[in-house]
Amino acid sequence: MQSEKLKELFIEELKDIFSAENQITKALPKMAKAAETPELKAAFEQHLEETQGHIERLQSIFDQLEESPKGKKCKGMEGLLAEGKEAMEEHEDEPEELEAALICAAQKVEHYEMATYGTLISWAKELEMDDVAGELEKTLQEEKATDKKLTQLAESSINVEAASE
Amino acid sequence: MQSEKLKELFIEELKDIFSAENQITKALPKMAKAAETPELKAAFEQHLEETQGHIERLQSIFDQLEESPKGKKCKGMEGLLAEGKEAMEEHEDEPEELEAALICAAQKVEHYEMATYGTLISWAKELEMDDVAGELEKTLQEEKATDKKLTQLAESSINVEAASE
Repeated sequence: MQSEKLKELFIEELKDIFSAENQITKALPKMAKAAETPELKAAFEQHLEETQGHIERLQSIFDQLEESPKGKKCKGMEGLLAEGKEAMEEHEDEPEELEAALICAAQKVEHYEMATYGTLISWAKELEMDDVAGELEKTLQEEKATDKKLTQLAESSINVEAASE
Repeated sequence: MQSEKLKELFIEELKDIFSAENQITKALPKMAKAAETPELKAAFEQHLEETQGHIERLQSIFDQLEESPKGKKCKGMEGLLAEGKEAMEEHEDEPEELEAALICAAQKVEHYEMATYGTLISWAKELEMDDVAGELEKTLQEEKATDKKLTQLAESSINVEAASE
């Protein structure tokens, strides 16, 4: 493929994840508010801070490339967050189910980001933009760490109470 | 959590992935048709067959639990496939970009499934439904293998032509 064409694709996908990250910053405070346990609340709050850092990283990549981050609405993330909102509404009055459903929704969001950053990193390397790939790699590692933490929280949150069976 | 409540969540999420897999069977033939290289076309066709197997596996789990798979439309997958469709339309006349964009879209779909099956397996284990967990694990492994194959195809498809620079 011509490098100019791959670069166009790269910028398009960078706009997609920029839109996705911005959508996430609007959803996370609601998820933190809905979370019952202090651990999950703290995890969402910490991830909100990280997400703001991811947006700054993306902004600085756009600046380097002299491109604008605007112009794309990420439909994938829109669907994932609509699903998460639906789950929050369904389990509004059931704190334990809500907690498990919130974690499940959040892991789908993390996986969307892991897939996207994975692709962006391999395209950046092919375009010999090693510094950009390195920046995106930092974000990918944070997304993976969040996903792992959510798995641990899920395992403790779903503990079935033997006494209630 | 009470096991009855976790079971309700489990069935809800099982309906979500049942809807997602069914949506995927409608999208994959279009993606196979759009793919230029025989390798990618074959990968989509093979994954369509696997997806039909995943649906049968889910159907048999619903039968065991005496539940209906109907009643949920997976909004997450709807968004992901809308994004894939958009990418196909944008790059209709550019076979190389189309190929790379198709792989990127397909990997987002795989990651959605990996996140969902991961959650379902941990819930099934907690509910002591080890056979069900084992069946879902088979599907998860196939999704992971597809994702890996797509990464390999992506790496060969994006090879920037040195001559064109």
